[in-house]
Amino acid sequence: MSAPAITDAKYVLGEKMDEGIPDIPSGPLDIYRKKASFSWKQMLQFLEGDEIIAFKQHVFRTLESDPLFARQPGEDIPVEQKRELAFRRCKQLFKYDFVTRDDVMQNPWKMTILNDCLGMYDWSLGAKYFLNKGVTTDSLLMLCLSEFVISSPDFEAAKFWVGNLGKTATHSVVFAQLYTPDGQCHGLHSFIVQVRDPKTLLAMPGVMVGDMGKKLGQNGLDNGFAIFHNVRIPRENLLNKTGDVTPDGRYVSPFKDPNKRFGASLGALSGGRVGITRMALVNLKLAVTVAVRFSATRRQFGPKEDEEIPVLEYQLQQWRLLPFLAAVYALEHFTRSFCMNFVEFQIGLLMKDKSDRQAELGREIHAMSCASKPLGSWTAQRGIQECREACGGHGYLAMNRLGELRDDNDPNCTYEGDNNVLLQQTSNYLLSWMQHKQQGLYTLETNLPTLNFHTLLYYSFQTLIQFLASSVHLFNVIISSDVVSSVPLAAYKWLVCFLLGESQRKLFHEKSSGLGDFEARNNSQVYYCRSLAIAYIEHTVLQRFHDLIQDEQTPAALRSVLGRLCALYGLWTLTNHMAILYQGGYFSGRQPVDFIHTAILTLCGQLKDDAVALVDVIAPPDFILNSPIGKADGELYKNLWSTVMQGKNVLERPSWWAEFCSDKPAVGSLRAKL
Amino acid sequence: MSAPAITDAKYVLGEKMDEGIPDIPSGPLDIYRKKASFSWKQMLQFLEGDEIIAFKQHVFRTLESDPLFARQPGEDIPVEQKRELAFRRCKQLFKYDFVTRDDVMQNPWKMTILNDCLGMYDWSLGAKYFLNKGVTTDSLLMLCLSEFVISSPDFEAAKFWVGNLGKTATHSVVFAQLYTPDGQCHGLHSFIVQVRDPKTLLAMPGVMVGDMGKKLGQNGLDNGFAIFHNVRIPRENLLNKTGDVTPDGRYVSPFKDPNKRFGASLGALSGGRVGITRMALVNLKLAVTVAVRFSATRRQFGPKEDEEIPVLEYQLQQWRLLPFLAAVYALEHFTRSFCMNFVEFQIGLLMKDKSDRQAELGREIHAMSCASKPLGSWTAQRGIQECREACGGHGYLAMNRLGELRDDNDPNCTYEGDNNVLLQQTSNYLLSWMQHKQQGLYTLETNLPTLNFHTLLYYSFQTLIQFLASSVHLFNVIISSDVVSSVPLAAYKWLVCFLLGESQRKLFHEKSSGLGDFEARNNSQVYYCRSLAIAYIEHTVLQRFHDLIQDEQTPAALRSVLGRLCALYGLWTLTNHMAILYQGGYFSGRQPVDFIHTAILTLCGQLKDDAVALVDVIAPPDFILNSPIGKADGELYKNLWSTVMQGKNVLERPSWWAEFCSDKPAVGSLRAKL
Repeated sequence: MSAPAITDAKYVLGEKMDEGIPDIPSGPLDIYRKKASFSWKQMLQFLEGDEIIAFKQHVFRTLESDPLFARQPGEDIPVEQKRELAFRRCKQLFKYDFVTRDDVMQNPWKMTILNDCLGMYDWSLGAKYFLNKGVTTDSLLMLCLSEFVISSPDFEAAKFWVGNLGKTATHSVVFAQLYTPDGQCHGLHSFIVQVRDPKTLLAMPGVMVGDMGKKLGQNGLDNGFAIFHNVRIPRENLLNKTGDVTPDGRYVSPFKDPNKRFGASLGALSGGRVGITRMALVNLKLAVTVAVRFSATRRQFGPKEDEEIPVLEYQLQQWRLLPFLAAVYALEHFTRSFCMNFVEFQIGLLMKDKSDRQAELGREIHAMSCASKPLGSWTAQRGIQECREACGGHGYLAMNRLGELRDDNDPNCTYEGDNNVLLQQTSNYLLSWMQHKQQGLYTLETNLPTLNFHTLLYYSFQTLIQFLASSVHLFNVIISSDVVSSVPLAAYKWLVCFLLGESQRKLFHEKSSGLGDFEARNNSQVYYCRSLAIAYIEHTVLQRFHDLIQDEQTPAALRSVLGRLCALYGLWTLTNHMAILYQGGYFSGRQPVDFIHTAILTLCGQLKDDAVALVDVIAPPDFILNSPIGKADGELYKNLWSTVMQGKNVLERPSWWAEFCSDKPAVGSLRAKL
Repeated sequence: MSAPAITDAKYVLGEKMDEGIPDIPSGPLDIYRKKASFSWKQMLQFLEGDEIIAFKQHVFRTLESDPLFARQPGEDIPVEQKRELAFRRCKQLFKYDFVTRDDVMQNPWKMTILNDCLGMYDWSLGAKYFLNKGVTTDSLLMLCLSEFVISSPDFEAAKFWVGNLGKTATHSVVFAQLYTPDGQCHGLHSFIVQVRDPKTLLAMPGVMVGDMGKKLGQNGLDNGFAIFHNVRIPRENLLNKTGDVTPDGRYVSPFKDPNKRFGASLGALSGGRVGITRMALVNLKLAVTVAVRFSATRRQFGPKEDEEIPVLEYQLQQWRLLPFLAAVYALEHFTRSFCMNFVEFQIGLLMKDKSDRQAELGREIHAMSCASKPLGSWTAQRGIQECREACGGHGYLAMNRLGELRDDNDPNCTYEGDNNVLLQQTSNYLLSWMQHKQQGLYTLETNLPTLNFHTLLYYSFQTLIQFLASSVHLFNVIISSDVVSSVPLAAYKWLVCFLLGESQRKLFHEKSSGLGDFEARNNSQVYYCRSLAIAYIEHTVLQRFHDLIQDEQTPAALRSVLGRLCALYGLWTLTNHMAILYQGGYFSGRQPVDFIHTAILTLCGQLKDDAVALVDVIAPPDFILNSPIGKADGELYKNLWSTVMQGKNVLERPSWWAEFCSDKPAVGSLRAKL
């Protein structure tokens, strides 16, 4: 199975169907818009399709028209008020009911797009809404005593971070070790526990439930904690999809094999990570939009004394920003196709598909999501920071939103599994796949094309020399984006193979030197398994982007710019691995580095005139972006100044002025110091 | 001139002089403290000396004893109130008058230490205090019309970001183009302009002065803007150090050569950047303290089912954090010795030293500070982010302070010159130094030992082969930190030479292909000049740290741990340049990468038992650190829980509970969905 096609008949007709897309406000950014090598409306239609474009506009316009969603860039709102606002807005979203159950069945992608739209407005709101919509609040981990009396042994066993639990959740799903009266432990199971009275919002007896306090971001969402003291819960509250207890206390499970039960959960648990990968991408889109529009309008210095040029004209600024713009496009296609893979897996679950293929698909999605979340969240983290710095002092003003994006994106690195820990799941999967392959155990090919270079893999060491020869050839040809993007792709294939071999060797070495499995794995993460997992997912993202461009349904007019973005993304991520490429002998001499550096800068130079149009494709309306320096018209200073002057108490003297004036510290006469 | 000695007789006596250092609170962290290979008190005395230790304790205790400085970790304070608090606290600092003018004359280092102490408490406060103490608020850039009538032509010419100008500044230093009545422009000059009435804090006629609004951090400081409309200022308000205008409108300057006048300002303007390098280091110290203490007490998983081990025992966690701890020690010595260089330069200014040596010292300090600020602020930025992530969800709680540190450190990358732009100043200096050297123009050696490998430099290409031979030798010897730290040092010397040669060649190539000076420079930044400046400053930091350890005044008992820190820092920063080392042929084959990776992980393993003691040396008292998970006793959960429970409205239902309960959105019966 390959990456699902995201094109349909409508896309091909793209050029004629742009009536539904509103024009971008005109202004100083038009200079760059006129230089673009492609039609941004055609690109938007190719990527989104008319139905989604219309849906997004509907959501955005609805929010903009509702005074409850009004806001001022950079306003200073206390945490308590943020939570109240998020609650009221969330309630309003239930009234709007943008996506019905039927809509989801017809087009599951709409749910992701709704999350994109809400997140672009405010991630707290999106999280609060979907947590409420999904009924459950989150999961708690506790010690459960038999016959359904639940207790937290101590503070350390209290579960932190449960979304919506801080202020309002009335019921919570608790994962607890289940003990039957015979004293046997049946492992983790989930229960519904009532934590607050829905009529009063007061805590239930035996439950201490509260708000964790201020976080770095997403403060509209009230994360909470709960501690239980001998809380009795009815037997019916056991969520019995994977195991049940009869009224007489016996444990029954539909799964014969406990490992298979665990395996069945793996794929399903990937949903969060698939979603987070996308959320991180949305943050990166917003940040890149702000920084590129700023850079195209902010002028500093120039070749002549009397004429300043936009900072986007500086190679250094291009090099700082455009690779992240390329990453947006690479990850846009990846997250979309990966969501579709996940939908396919979920359909299998609903259809009770018990095939080996379905089980393997679950494992592969698990492995991919455990690496795609780190890749997405870290790329966004670094990208937002670079955008913040690239906007200079303006980026440090709260009103321009880059700080909020950084703060709101940050937990993507942590929740649903710490990035570094998750990467181990991916490398474990790859190593076990390799081992099976070597032992000739697998007859089944993997479902997703993430390891479709398995023949290469199998002979990786034998083919090394051939690869070297071919790479030398590639480095000598004239730069064309088609060829250029095949260079990093080939390098990544080699890299994954090399790191697989190295990781396996390292693990073997650690074990044979007497270490246990736990220590051996721990000592094989840095420079081995961790790098392997990252290279694997970067390769997958690159391969899918590369395939998209080769796809005959991709409009010819867009291939050139997409090809450049693909080549830039691949070469840029590859620069993180150059030492390994030399170490393993894939690179040698100065040619490879010269080639990669030259290609990256050449591509940046080619893409800078397309950058504003590329950003128009991914940008939400100004109201949603909520960043004066990122506004679509590019009237940088007008937008900035009007926002500054609309701030609170801008020109007023402070309330404590009299105290300041009456009793100033003596620092000596000003005049005397001159 | 070499790096100034930071040791004195007192340090040598270190072991007997620890009466003045209070003990660290006891707790779970003691397990690691007992494993330390050195005495943290001896290290503290070696680094700080008794006078500074006592001074810091005095400042810290004074703040802790004053209720005005009381605070709660993670509390949510509105921006307006933050500004008021900073004002009141700042006023109190003037009463405490911790450092008198005589103190500064006797020991200029005390001023830096006071800034360290205040910054560890709150950077806004430190900034507000020192801006007030330094009389001026900051500088503005305007167009000045002749005979001292000042006007801003438009909004774009208004100066943003002036510290203290938002709320209270009454006078401002304005840098403006000076036009005399004959229409001639004499370039930038500075003036004192009154912006507010000191009796009322109301704006002066013709002045629009206001608050810029919320920033990402440092919100206790009120940054402001000012716009002038035909404001007349007295002639006496021209700050006439570098140029004056006579009553009849003629321009007179004490400098015959305008270039020399510019040069004289360069060194003096470095003060801000020297200070910022240190400020960034202080932020890194706090973040590393929090993360290391957390990692030494937070337990997760383990080789046996029933025993969890501290996360600091994981090689991956060591590799994430310990290089930043090493960076703290490397930068501690560098910033201290660099501050002393700057003091020496300032003394020269005071003594009206007009020698070539003084001028060259100014240029060299300028070049160094333009690279040390980027190095320091970026290292802190990345380190704080890594610490945030390494503390997982706990790091995302505002109460643990890592978010505040990230936000407060962030502008260090931007103010006093954008990092990327500043690096050009450094490479310009190096390239012009190299050119003079090649043309045999210089007879004078540089003052600071930053380029003391100039003979090597001069023959860099000839000695390449010899270097290669010696490096191969180094890679084969057994790991001892002495030898290990000389490996990156040698590599850095080669690297700076190589990048100097490459940058010169690249510039020449761009110019000879027909580009003007402006474009040629722009196209030589990425991968050339920028890398050169970074390698140069990293080499300088490493060289100074290396020299410190070789210094015979350094206590023998501390050399081993300092040597490991030095080696780790050098190897870790070098990993960013490995592709270049291969590209230039300094590295070849797989041995270099194998060696460096193995050495880094070995050093991490050796340093992990010293990490808690190394952090005790740099940590302020708990009150100042203000982070429950970073407290010295290591009672992680007790400290965390007591802070959570002391928060505002933790267990109370929200004020809008009735609205929530009366009109809940219908999401269907809970039971029906199970």
